[in-house]
Amino acid sequence: MYTCSLARLQNKIDTFKTFGDTGTGGITRLSLSQEALAAREEFVKRCKAMGMQVKTDDMANLYATLPGGEDLPGFVMGSHLDSVINGGNYDGVLGVLTAMEVAETIWTEKIRTRRPVTVMVWTNEEGSRFEPAMMSSGVVTGKFDKARALASTDGKGVRFEDALEASGYKGAAENRLGAQGYAGYFELHIEQGPVLEMENKDIGVVEGVVGMVNYTVTVKGVSDHAGTTPQKTRKDALYAASQLILLLWARLSKLDPELVFTTGKIHVSPNIHTVIPKLVEFSLDARHKDPNVIAQAVEVIRNLPETLSGCQISAAENWGRKTVLFDAGYVNAVEEAAKEAGYSYRRIYSGAGHDAQYVADILPATMIFVPSVGGHSHCVEEFTPTEACLNGANVMLNAILATDKL
Amino acid sequence: MYTCSLARLQNKIDTFKTFGDTGTGGITRLSLSQEALAAREEFVKRCKAMGMQVKTDDMANLYATLPGGEDLPGFVMGSHLDSVINGGNYDGVLGVLTAMEVAETIWTEKIRTRRPVTVMVWTNEEGSRFEPAMMSSGVVTGKFDKARALASTDGKGVRFEDALEASGYKGAAENRLGAQGYAGYFELHIEQGPVLEMENKDIGVVEGVVGMVNYTVTVKGVSDHAGTTPQKTRKDALYAASQLILLLWARLSKLDPELVFTTGKIHVSPNIHTVIPKLVEFSLDARHKDPNVIAQAVEVIRNLPETLSGCQISAAENWGRKTVLFDAGYVNAVEEAAKEAGYSYRRIYSGAGHDAQYVADILPATMIFVPSVGGHSHCVEEFTPTEACLNGANVMLNAILATDKL
Repeated sequence: MYTCSLARLQNKIDTFKTFGDTGTGGITRLSLSQEALAAREEFVKRCKAMGMQVKTDDMANLYATLPGGEDLPGFVMGSHLDSVINGGNYDGVLGVLTAMEVAETIWTEKIRTRRPVTVMVWTNEEGSRFEPAMMSSGVVTGKFDKARALASTDGKGVRFEDALEASGYKGAAENRLGAQGYAGYFELHIEQGPVLEMENKDIGVVEGVVGMVNYTVTVKGVSDHAGTTPQKTRKDALYAASQLILLLWARLSKLDPELVFTTGKIHVSPNIHTVIPKLVEFSLDARHKDPNVIAQAVEVIRNLPETLSGCQISAAENWGRKTVLFDAGYVNAVEEAAKEAGYSYRRIYSGAGHDAQYVADILPATMIFVPSVGGHSHCVEEFTPTEACLNGANVMLNAILATDKL
Repeated sequence: MYTCSLARLQNKIDTFKTFGDTGTGGITRLSLSQEALAAREEFVKRCKAMGMQVKTDDMANLYATLPGGEDLPGFVMGSHLDSVINGGNYDGVLGVLTAMEVAETIWTEKIRTRRPVTVMVWTNEEGSRFEPAMMSSGVVTGKFDKARALASTDGKGVRFEDALEASGYKGAAENRLGAQGYAGYFELHIEQGPVLEMENKDIGVVEGVVGMVNYTVTVKGVSDHAGTTPQKTRKDALYAASQLILLLWARLSKLDPELVFTTGKIHVSPNIHTVIPKLVEFSLDARHKDPNVIAQAVEVIRNLPETLSGCQISAAENWGRKTVLFDAGYVNAVEEAAKEAGYSYRRIYSGAGHDAQYVADILPATMIFVPSVGGHSHCVEEFTPTEACLNGANVMLNAILATDKL
């Protein structure tokens, strides 16, 4: 069994954390920003040093390829270099760095693979600068309209299309990831949750990405002066919204212990301390791998009371996604590689969305999770010890080498 | 008994509602904005047409005075011309327009008062552009530090001091309202609540302004990914905040039926639909005329649980004010004038703050309320029929004339 290098992986992590360093232990590296372009430059430099052929497609996705011994479609390992605002040093970038480390191990150890091995960087996975998230994998796999993606603007009014042109990384559409040139796709990622850590597992063998629904719940009350309106005559939208949030928790908690649901965003109008709120809108995100449980959650949301504390209640679905199942053969290959290396592991579903879920539509694909300390993600506390990251790299390397023999 | 003119008052209301008209039935007329300056120009023009002497003080408060027959301190009727964003056509401006109408009646009817009668416009009562609210009455009565008021900036970074200079209305500090030149102060205002309407009363004889406390309650949880964090391991600050809001309502509702309390403002961080909220801060405003009830409300707030659903809870007092009692003689004069006119009335406390509460510290002062349809205020629905406004003007006129004879 081949193993990657802890020292080399540490060096990669230490180097890439400087691109967008916020000085607080985390990074802000928005897609196609100067910080993200600096990270790309370092990626290209290191890949070229290994003699890899580097190309880009029309969405500026980067492909660095080690040749294979036979004329066969190749393997791709990919993730993203962009982060959320005040994000951490592992979400996305670790998938790129471990892929680079796998390639470097193949190159250093002179492993002769039958198939080419490509390390890939997806443009704009987070969607923090240009919406939507997973933009480029969405376009490349036909989920998103390219023209709409190009027209997406950031908070300063910059169009994604112009940022793409200015980046210097825009290439030809014919270079896109696809079923012709490629055999399959692996993506290593931190779990972004506490399950592996709580169960003391080294590796998450990812079977798929859970289905989800996203609703906006609207509560309409009446604004009046906080000092002059008797309590009994009020139609306070925030009071009613507080009741609704607790009601939703009570009802959704009864459905299934693995159902996760979140009110992460709330908008209150007019949001002035001396005015009774007239309007509250809050998000409700619910996820589960079983479509039946999602359907039950939707029933709960649709059957909210029409009025509560004098306020009008309504709920509108914003979007949903069905559960994505990864390729059984690739999932098994990851499991076998973990087993052979002697790592503890468990099968798991991803609760978060990843580029791999779109790739799964056009190629055999799967993911490998490594534990997130404290389950934290999208924050400066995001952390995974390099030894734990290395376990994941070793699993990816050996799953590829095993699949390459088939 | 003298009476004001319905037609003239209607003309004033119709004219002044054009200054800052939002086209939706309301106005946005922020302090010292072009819209507010246009309203001031109209005010000055109309007052000068009656031969009134117009002057301003160092906070750009406007004073338009009809002379009296004797060398005595004068009466002041005042309120403000500025509004909140998307405010209505009655809060503040009605106090100025009825005062102008009272002066116009005295002038037209050639009523010989012993004392001068001044109509006053306070600068920046709302505090919607420059914080704090009631800025100029606060400075003139020594509640606020003038230097801090001058340094207040609006959302575009404009200093209040610069807006004051640019307005053309900045005058001398020696022109300020004070105990030397003035005998007492009347302020007519809409109730901004539903009590007069519900009880079918024409006039509110305002005894004082209720005491209040304002707290910020902080709930600290932990941010994690909405899709990957099992429900049982979450420390969701918005869930805990929802529980707290209901707990506060339950406990405060038991204290006294006249206690009003409001959570009007909430801030959630990071406020993203896919992230469990880590921090929630919400306002709690509580008001009652009886300091003992306020003290009980403060006890409830101070005795919130220290932790709830895994989150840390704390509460900090932002400010408070004691109940302000208006001058008994002036309150009686208003009541007598209402009674003589045959209007229905009730004694009432103001739940909202008004410039009159600061003036009460330096001069005998009181207020007159007219009903608010639906109790609405600080919104485009704000409305009081002109007939009902006229009742208030008549009460103010006759209370002044009666007091003038003393």
